[in-house]
Amino acid sequence: MRQTRVVRKIHVIGIGAGDPDQLTLQAVKALRSTDVFFLLDKGEVKSDLTQLRRDILDAHLPEGSYRVVEARDPERDRKAGGAAYSPAVGDWRSARAGIYERLIGEELDEDGTGAFLVWGDPALYDSTLAILEEVRERGAVEFVYDVVPGISSVSALVARHRTGLNRVARPVQITTGRRLAEGFPEGVDDVVVMLDAHQAFRRYADEDMDIYWGAYIGTPDEILVSGPIAEAGPRIERLRAEARERKGWIMDTYLLRRHSAQDGQAGG
Amino acid sequence: MRQTRVVRKIHVIGIGAGDPDQLTLQAVKALRSTDVFFLLDKGEVKSDLTQLRRDILDAHLPEGSYRVVEARDPERDRKAGGAAYSPAVGDWRSARAGIYERLIGEELDEDGTGAFLVWGDPALYDSTLAILEEVRERGAVEFVYDVVPGISSVSALVARHRTGLNRVARPVQITTGRRLAEGFPEGVDDVVVMLDAHQAFRRYADEDMDIYWGAYIGTPDEILVSGPIAEAGPRIERLRAEARERKGWIMDTYLLRRHSAQDGQAGG
Repeated sequence: MRQTRVVRKIHVIGIGAGDPDQLTLQAVKALRSTDVFFLLDKGEVKSDLTQLRRDILDAHLPEGSYRVVEARDPERDRKAGGAAYSPAVGDWRSARAGIYERLIGEELDEDGTGAFLVWGDPALYDSTLAILEEVRERGAVEFVYDVVPGISSVSALVARHRTGLNRVARPVQITTGRRLAEGFPEGVDDVVVMLDAHQAFRRYADEDMDIYWGAYIGTPDEILVSGPIAEAGPRIERLRAEARERKGWIMDTYLLRRHSAQDGQAGG
Repeated sequence: MRQTRVVRKIHVIGIGAGDPDQLTLQAVKALRSTDVFFLLDKGEVKSDLTQLRRDILDAHLPEGSYRVVEARDPERDRKAGGAAYSPAVGDWRSARAGIYERLIGEELDEDGTGAFLVWGDPALYDSTLAILEEVRERGAVEFVYDVVPGISSVSALVARHRTGLNRVARPVQITTGRRLAEGFPEGVDDVVVMLDAHQAFRRYADEDMDIYWGAYIGTPDEILVSGPIAEAGPRIERLRAEARERKGWIMDTYLLRRHSAQDGQAGG
């Protein structure tokens, strides 16, 4: 029986959106059952985030009880525009799969447990699960894995703004800045936007819409702005540019809530 | 200054989708700073859920350190169809606001801290935040409140299925069974469906679509089914009916993933 064989085990652990207290008890247990943590650094601008992950390990694990292996993420061609986006992601993912394969195969004992720590929730705009599937399909290293869900930046954002994602009995869409720049999604009035490097919300400044924006949510650097987009939008642009300049990187998310004839309150 | 006045404080705490280990450290801290927990019971069929919340309190708080006030939720007119849905929710919400106002005003000392425990994440298809806003607008009791985000059944579902919510650079929509019954949402191929009492997915049995379904996610009763909807759908219908019969109630959620020309992998 497959279950009784000894194989490498991997946890993919959602560690929340930035506040170390957003770890779940399940995540803490998974951390404690891990021998080797794989931390992938995306370059200098993201080294703050690597340090935050190390701080989480320090806070919850006895010194000397685990090992950390840092690796450098391959560069992703973010300059590729429009239709080229997905293939660029594909190449980058394959390069990453090669790194993950090596990490799992070389750094983990055959009965060992490794973990990847993912900001927010591994289910939202994160490639770890797809990369692990690709490594499994390659077949060079054998392992099993599980996923520990985390508080996403989406949940953290609306909690800090004390509002819901959806309005009564209505849908909400989660999408990217790139998509929002192409047009407001059809059939929804509540839209959460992630991965927006170009403030696509500016296109909607003249519409009857509220924006709930947050950057570095749950961290000491947190910035929150909400209000009608015509007023809040320019303020967000200014604060975002200042923060990005000051820290060298920014992680932000926002909810757009369009007013329409069928408006109700949030919740339900 | 307002901050220096003594006012009642309320935590709205997301407690995860059913697994007590899905509590965050932030949620545990909020539980520990609470004097009075308000548990609203939706009737006998949901009393299992009330017990689960009591178990969470037992597990994390010293006996005698807190008080629990149970109240009966007003009946919601779920039989109202289509367009009548939102007004019915409105009446029900006002009735609920009256109960919340009484609970906060009568059961909580003026410098006390109360809490409402919400399954999943208070941001998704939950009315607690909107009801508290209504109570504040009425102006009869004064209080401040904060929100502790929780692992939603949506996050828990896809974690158990080890898949992402979105595919690379593509959107995901979260909607209701009622909406899905009216048609597949426009502009998206990944749709999470909540509050579906009528298995609206059956309408799509002939389409090239996968379904990832879960009931009682994270609890010992958990049931998971995934696969092409033509095959998995009938199995889900059968298992769902049996489980509902056996336990008297069911809480389930699913993701529909439609295949299309622009398909990529999950993640990204």
